[in-house]
Amino acid sequence: MDNHSKNDSQHWIRQEIRDLSAYHVADASGMIKLDAMENPYVWPDALRQQWASLIEQTDVNRYPDPSCLGLKQQLRQVMNIPEDMEIMLGNGSDEIIQIVAMAMSGTGRSILSVDPGFVMYKMISTFCGLKYIGVPLREEDFSLDLPAILQAMDQYQPAVVFLAYPNNPTGNLFDEQQVIEVIEAAPGLVVIDEAYAPFTDETFMHRLGQYDNLVVMRTVSKMGLAGLRLGFLAGPPDWLNEFEKLRLPYNINTLTQLSAELAMKHHVVLDEQTARIRQQRKVVVSALTQMQGLTIYPSDANFILIRTAAGQAAPIHARLKDKGILIKLLDGSAPMLKDCLRITIGTAEENQKLIASIAACL
Amino acid sequence: MDNHSKNDSQHWIRQEIRDLSAYHVADASGMIKLDAMENPYVWPDALRQQWASLIEQTDVNRYPDPSCLGLKQQLRQVMNIPEDMEIMLGNGSDEIIQIVAMAMSGTGRSILSVDPGFVMYKMISTFCGLKYIGVPLREEDFSLDLPAILQAMDQYQPAVVFLAYPNNPTGNLFDEQQVIEVIEAAPGLVVIDEAYAPFTDETFMHRLGQYDNLVVMRTVSKMGLAGLRLGFLAGPPDWLNEFEKLRLPYNINTLTQLSAELAMKHHVVLDEQTARIRQQRKVVVSALTQMQGLTIYPSDANFILIRTAAGQAAPIHARLKDKGILIKLLDGSAPMLKDCLRITIGTAEENQKLIASIAACL
Repeated sequence: MDNHSKNDSQHWIRQEIRDLSAYHVADASGMIKLDAMENPYVWPDALRQQWASLIEQTDVNRYPDPSCLGLKQQLRQVMNIPEDMEIMLGNGSDEIIQIVAMAMSGTGRSILSVDPGFVMYKMISTFCGLKYIGVPLREEDFSLDLPAILQAMDQYQPAVVFLAYPNNPTGNLFDEQQVIEVIEAAPGLVVIDEAYAPFTDETFMHRLGQYDNLVVMRTVSKMGLAGLRLGFLAGPPDWLNEFEKLRLPYNINTLTQLSAELAMKHHVVLDEQTARIRQQRKVVVSALTQMQGLTIYPSDANFILIRTAAGQAAPIHARLKDKGILIKLLDGSAPMLKDCLRITIGTAEENQKLIASIAACL
Repeated sequence: MDNHSKNDSQHWIRQEIRDLSAYHVADASGMIKLDAMENPYVWPDALRQQWASLIEQTDVNRYPDPSCLGLKQQLRQVMNIPEDMEIMLGNGSDEIIQIVAMAMSGTGRSILSVDPGFVMYKMISTFCGLKYIGVPLREEDFSLDLPAILQAMDQYQPAVVFLAYPNNPTGNLFDEQQVIEVIEAAPGLVVIDEAYAPFTDETFMHRLGQYDNLVVMRTVSKMGLAGLRLGFLAGPPDWLNEFEKLRLPYNINTLTQLSAELAMKHHVVLDEQTARIRQQRKVVVSALTQMQGLTIYPSDANFILIRTAAGQAAPIHARLKDKGILIKLLDGSAPMLKDCLRITIGTAEENQKLIASIAACL
C-alpha cells in the first residue's frame, strides 16, 4: 500500500470519482419545465382513480416480485419485443447502462459512443472503471462520422458501443444503414438506446436476433412515466442472461411494477399524448424556423436542438428563465454545441409562451 | 486483445460474472412466508386511504425530486440521524453497498466482512471487481473472532469492512466494544449495517462523528416497507459527498419518496408492528427452546437461527413446505451453518402453526 493517513476518504475513494462533480439538476419549482424531455400531460381522472384503488389494496410489507413477470409480459406486447428475446428491467436506463458497463469492465476495457451524446454513457463508464471514447459527430448535421467510428472501434476494441436513436441532445436519427454498419463492424456489444422511440417511427426492435451483438434499450420516462424510473434492455439470451446476474434482485419496487403494468394496459392514453407532442413539435419547429438568427435542427424526439447567433444562447436561456420558462443551455457543454439550446416540447399553451418569449429575445 | 470470436458474449462478459449463478428467490405464492425477514403486518385502512388519495394526486410524467429533501428530513427525525451527518438514499441497502464498492474498487482493493454474513456483501464485491474476504465468526456463538479480523485487516488492508449489527443470518449482536476495536483498527471505512435496528435497542447511530471512518446503513425493508426498496447511508460529509457522486441522480422514484415519507410520518404504526414482532420472538424462542434436538441461537433481529439434529434441517424444511410454511434452509450454504434453519417471526397465528409443525417433525 502507498502512504496515506489512516481512514482517509481521499485515499480510498478512486481518483476518477474524486475528480467528478455531482450531477446537477436545476431547481424548477413553479417553472414551465421544458428542460428534461418530460411528457407534459398528466393522467386522466378515471385512470388515476383506478390506480389509487389498486394502490390502496397493495401490501408494501412484502418484497417485490423479483422476476417482474406481469410487467415484462405487458412490455413485451406493447413494445413489440420479439418472443425469443430476453428482457431485463432497470431503474431507468441509467441502471441498465451501469449493469452493462459493470459486466464488461476490466483493464483495457472501453465504451464507445458519439459526441455530443447522452452524458450518462460517459459518467457511468467512469463509475465502473472503463475508458470512454466519444467519437465526434459530423459538425454540419450531427450525423455519424462512420469512417471515424470504424477507425476508433478498430483502435480501441470497445466492449460496448452505445448509440442513441434518436440521439440526445441533437434530436436526429442516424442513418439506418450506417448504424447497421457499426453493428456489423463492432468487436463487442452494440446498445441501441431508443429512449425517444415514442416520437419516431424508426426502431431497431424488429432487428433483434438478426445480429448476435445487438440489444435495444428503452425507457418509459419520455412517454410519460418519468416518475416511475423504469427502463429495459431487450436482446439475445446469451447477453441478457449474463446481465441479469448483475441486476440487484429486487431492483424494481412493488409500486413501479404495479403502476407501469397499469399504464401499459392503458398505453392508448400515453400514445395519444405522445401523438400530441409530435404534432406540437411541428408547430414549434415551424414557428422557430421563421425567426431570424436561429438554426433549427431536425428532430425525431420530443425536444428540439437550436443554435442561436454567436453568444446569444446563455442570454436567451437566462431571459426565458426570468419569464418562468426553463430550457436547457448546452453552450459550454461541448465545443460542437456552442450557442446551442435544447427545448423540450410542452403543451400547446406552454409552447406558445415559449415561442413568444424567444421571439421577444431576438 | 486476446483471441476471440467476434461479438462473443463469453469473451466480453467478465469471467467472475460468467461464473456466477443468478440470485434465486423461492416461489412463495400461497405460502406462510417466514423466509425473508418481512414484517407480516399490513397497513391499517385509514393509512391506506390517505396513501391512495396522495397517489391519486401524483403526476408521474415528471422526474422525481433528485435530492429527496422531504423524505430525508423525515428519515433524519425518525431515525435520529445526527444533524451534522449526511444522508444518501438507495434502492434498498443493495444499491448502497454497490455505490460504496464502486467508489473504492481498483487493483488490489478488497472488502472484508464476517462469515456467515449477508450474502450481498460478497456478491456485490464480485460485481464491482473487489476481492472479498470473509473472516469466520467463532463457531460456538457466532461472535466476532477479533484477533482473526485484526490480522486479516492488517494483511489485506480492506477498503471497506461491513458488519451487520445484528448479524444476518445468525441474528446476534456482536460485542459493542469489539466492534469499536474493529472501527479503530480498520485501515479504511467501516459500514455498520443496521438493517435489523427495529428489533434491537442497540445502535451505532449516535456514535457517528466519533470516528472519521464510521458510517451507518439502514433500510426500511424489515420495519414493514420491503416493497418500497429504500435504504440509506448516514455518515460524515467527507465520505458521503463522494458516494453521492455515484448515486444515479433519479434513483429513488416519485412513489417511493411519497410513500416512505408518509410511512415515516406514521412511524408509530410501524413501531407498534415491530414491537409485536419482538414480543412474538419471545414466544417462538420459548416454544422452540422446549423442543428436544434443537439449538436456538439468541436473536436481536426479526428472525431466529436454529440448528437441528444432524441431517434434519433439509427434511424439516421440506416438511414445513409441504404444510405451506416457507422458512430458509441454511444447511449447505456455509460449513458453519450445517443443519441450520432461519425462521422469520410472523404473526401470532403463523407462529403457532410454525411451532406445531416443527413439533410434528421432531
